[in-house]
Amino acid sequence: MAINNSIENFEMIVNDAFVQKAQSLRPTLNKSEVLPVSSVAIERKGDDWVAVKQADWSETKGIELAPPESVCIDFGDHCVGYVTLKFASAGSPPDAPAYIRLKFGELPCEIAEKSEDYHGSIGAGWIQEEFLHIDILPAEIRLPRRYAFRYLEVKVLASSPKYRLTVEDASCESVTSADWSKVEPLPESVPEHHRKMDAVSLKTMADCMQDVFEDGPKRDRRLWIGDLRLQALTNYVTFHNDDLVKRCLYLFGGLLQNERHVGACLFVEPKLQIDDTALFDYALFFISCLKDYYENTGDRQTLEDLWEVAYHQIELAKNRLDENYLVRDSDDWWCFLDWADGLNKQAGAQGVLIVTLKEALVLANEMKDGEKAEEIQKLLIKTINAASTYLWDEKKGFFRSGAQRQISWASQIWLILAGVLPAEKNRQILGRLEAKKGDKSIIGMVTPYMYHHYVEALFRCGLVDEAFKQMDDYWGQMIEDGADCFFELYDPDNRYVSPYGSRIINSYCHAWSCTPSYFIRKWYAEE
Amino acid sequence: MAINNSIENFEMIVNDAFVQKAQSLRPTLNKSEVLPVSSVAIERKGDDWVAVKQADWSETKGIELAPPESVCIDFGDHCVGYVTLKFASAGSPPDAPAYIRLKFGELPCEIAEKSEDYHGSIGAGWIQEEFLHIDILPAEIRLPRRYAFRYLEVKVLASSPKYRLTVEDASCESVTSADWSKVEPLPESVPEHHRKMDAVSLKTMADCMQDVFEDGPKRDRRLWIGDLRLQALTNYVTFHNDDLVKRCLYLFGGLLQNERHVGACLFVEPKLQIDDTALFDYALFFISCLKDYYENTGDRQTLEDLWEVAYHQIELAKNRLDENYLVRDSDDWWCFLDWADGLNKQAGAQGVLIVTLKEALVLANEMKDGEKAEEIQKLLIKTINAASTYLWDEKKGFFRSGAQRQISWASQIWLILAGVLPAEKNRQILGRLEAKKGDKSIIGMVTPYMYHHYVEALFRCGLVDEAFKQMDDYWGQMIEDGADCFFELYDPDNRYVSPYGSRIINSYCHAWSCTPSYFIRKWYAEE
Repeated sequence: MAINNSIENFEMIVNDAFVQKAQSLRPTLNKSEVLPVSSVAIERKGDDWVAVKQADWSETKGIELAPPESVCIDFGDHCVGYVTLKFASAGSPPDAPAYIRLKFGELPCEIAEKSEDYHGSIGAGWIQEEFLHIDILPAEIRLPRRYAFRYLEVKVLASSPKYRLTVEDASCESVTSADWSKVEPLPESVPEHHRKMDAVSLKTMADCMQDVFEDGPKRDRRLWIGDLRLQALTNYVTFHNDDLVKRCLYLFGGLLQNERHVGACLFVEPKLQIDDTALFDYALFFISCLKDYYENTGDRQTLEDLWEVAYHQIELAKNRLDENYLVRDSDDWWCFLDWADGLNKQAGAQGVLIVTLKEALVLANEMKDGEKAEEIQKLLIKTINAASTYLWDEKKGFFRSGAQRQISWASQIWLILAGVLPAEKNRQILGRLEAKKGDKSIIGMVTPYMYHHYVEALFRCGLVDEAFKQMDDYWGQMIEDGADCFFELYDPDNRYVSPYGSRIINSYCHAWSCTPSYFIRKWYAEE
Repeated sequence: MAINNSIENFEMIVNDAFVQKAQSLRPTLNKSEVLPVSSVAIERKGDDWVAVKQADWSETKGIELAPPESVCIDFGDHCVGYVTLKFASAGSPPDAPAYIRLKFGELPCEIAEKSEDYHGSIGAGWIQEEFLHIDILPAEIRLPRRYAFRYLEVKVLASSPKYRLTVEDASCESVTSADWSKVEPLPESVPEHHRKMDAVSLKTMADCMQDVFEDGPKRDRRLWIGDLRLQALTNYVTFHNDDLVKRCLYLFGGLLQNERHVGACLFVEPKLQIDDTALFDYALFFISCLKDYYENTGDRQTLEDLWEVAYHQIELAKNRLDENYLVRDSDDWWCFLDWADGLNKQAGAQGVLIVTLKEALVLANEMKDGEKAEEIQKLLIKTINAASTYLWDEKKGFFRSGAQRQISWASQIWLILAGVLPAEKNRQILGRLEAKKGDKSIIGMVTPYMYHHYVEALFRCGLVDEAFKQMDDYWGQMIEDGADCFFELYDPDNRYVSPYGSRIINSYCHAWSCTPSYFIRKWYAEE
């Protein structure tokens, strides 16, 4: 994500004990060496770019390049790690520095498209491109930055008429805090296409599991609570790195914003620092994360430590309710939900509030905190009532949001997940949405993050076939489109969508899209 | 220099004992910290660029920059060394990498002109420009490469809408193997403008004195024997680092080319390696270097060790003589002399041969090597005779060179230094040259290296006033034009000359232009 709002007079409220607990849980990174597979040519195919194999790496290494020649190396799969390149020279002793450009791409488009043409809304610093002088050859260069990539283009910008640069070899030390040995094999009943989908999900998860759960190893390389929630859910049925979830919970709980608001994301370098971005839905998801964690681990100490912070998010959310217990709308970036253009957040936010109130109620009961349970109960009744009274349009058969009474997929899905209406009515809404697919008057979905909630809603309503069909149409189609990992953004009808102004800045391995493993493993295990 | 010829089937003949001696003389680099003086704006002035002070550095540091803003830092004088930059941020916590461009310039033009517009004949890798991502802020970055510069522009290419990059501080750890405490004060009689010229020469020398005598710390950062000869001459009257000369002599003597030819330049990294460039004049200058070294140090062991290698260069040079004992001409880069366009090398080469034969004779006598002395004597008579018979045009009053009978400053100067004609005739030639200044039919001079020999010729002919006037007109004018060090190339009538296609690739601190100190200190001492 990249959201440009921030709190005025921002301050960070630190709970040292929580932070210490979080820091004691820093994971060990598992390292492995990944070697190139082949050289490829990046070629135009329709509106996109594809990598076409040229030669095995064993035949390619040692290739001599004179400016402006280049070689594009294919590492065969998505990598996250530290790259080492070995260079030498051919011809006379090098009498001028070699000057090279390196481009790292998760997808071929990042290699093919010109970085200087990017004028999008977020920092071009995310583009994985380096310019490097090599004064002395031969040289073994371990690049200090971590990259997320499958393709690496080495282009010689300058050498001298007297020598050519040779690319002797390349390797990547990949890093992850995921332990693959912890992943159980899939039940035999899982069909091949869901095995593939599970594998891509697991790869996405693993590559985002670093010192914390990152949203994406290319961008933003940061712990966001919206992503964490889905990563943690998937983690419980895959890598079982519960300590990493715990670490992230204590980080969010130990580094609060003004008014003890849980922040949307946080930084671990150069020091622990909560970001100044505050989001209505993301703060409430601290409750979800804690509830899921407790449910999956039974770790009561953590629940006891963090319950107060979790409950406090409800108190803060209450301040945003109007006299009818309806979440107040506004034009700034107060709530995320999805990247869909023009999406009004009011109804979705009401849904998130109800969902998390229900989760908080579970935790309050677990904590035997009768007073808070009662308070939550009251609030639940009022907010559910507000949703059905003011947001539900019986005639249209849809929830509506904001002053313009907008109808969107996000609003329906969140209020279905909130269980505002009876189950049968929810199923009908989903049927109506399906029937209206492609209808431009209804604001659609853009992110796998929103699609996750749609699939979740389908499962909750017992529409299992529809849920799997949706997964196949969406995540399955991403695989068809060449995904080694699942993307940050994907619209099957508009494949090159980006909220940032260019697809080269998109993240193509993004945690919030990792949930097919969660659905597959939950479903086939329960079968 | 950057010369694109090379020997076929090149091999290096190593004398381990010589190499060990050279390596035992590796100098200690003296380090000192240089801090910025001010920020400057680079502004157009006529055809050139100038730096206009904006504010003291104390007022500038901490400056906040959003893309595409920049700050140009003036370190107040030419620096050679390792730069450390301190960055921080202002605004929200940095949520995207900062992406910056650094440009280092010895002169303002290197900052102002676009590197991507350079399409010259030598490697663009020499342009001192870096692109850098900063993932974590604050950051203290010590750049791994050595730069030669006075100006450093920091330009922010990308940050994010949420923060600005701040330039907190900068410093340069300057390095040199020169010891300033060894330089004697100038005699009181030296006038102010010659004191200034001496100071700039010394700075030029010091900045080129590194692990070896480099030609230029920006480019080529390499030991060339043509430069070494003039650096050594100047060294004997300034920094007195005779061991550095000795080291360089043993390197050239210990790393020979095919047929035991002394190479034109050599590399010390990644390993000791003689370059495959062979030049007629440069190989013979090994004799000059050895003779000057012995004359200044009396180090007989070095003379005895290296005399055979020195003498052998004469044997090799003899192969290039035709039946009339005239150096054979050719179209390739067989002899350097100067960068002047279209310069024919034959007559100049004949001059260099005679000069170095005379020097060899001194050494042969010193070595009591009667046989070689006699051989040299014979050759001297024949080559001098050939020059006066075939190259001297009595009617024109000039030496002529090559099939086209070209008249050039270089030919006159070298054959004057060779003493082919009587002293009075030489004076007349110099007078005629002076009278023809600007005459396009006579090939002029381009480099301070060639101007050095012109001034040397004037002194030798007793034209002391003219010699000093020439120094004032040339090196003095360079200072007027803003030189902190003396340049690789300078033509007062065509100030933006470059043999490489762009002045931004020129070296503006170049060893072969350091000899005003030699002349000033020799002359005023003898006064």
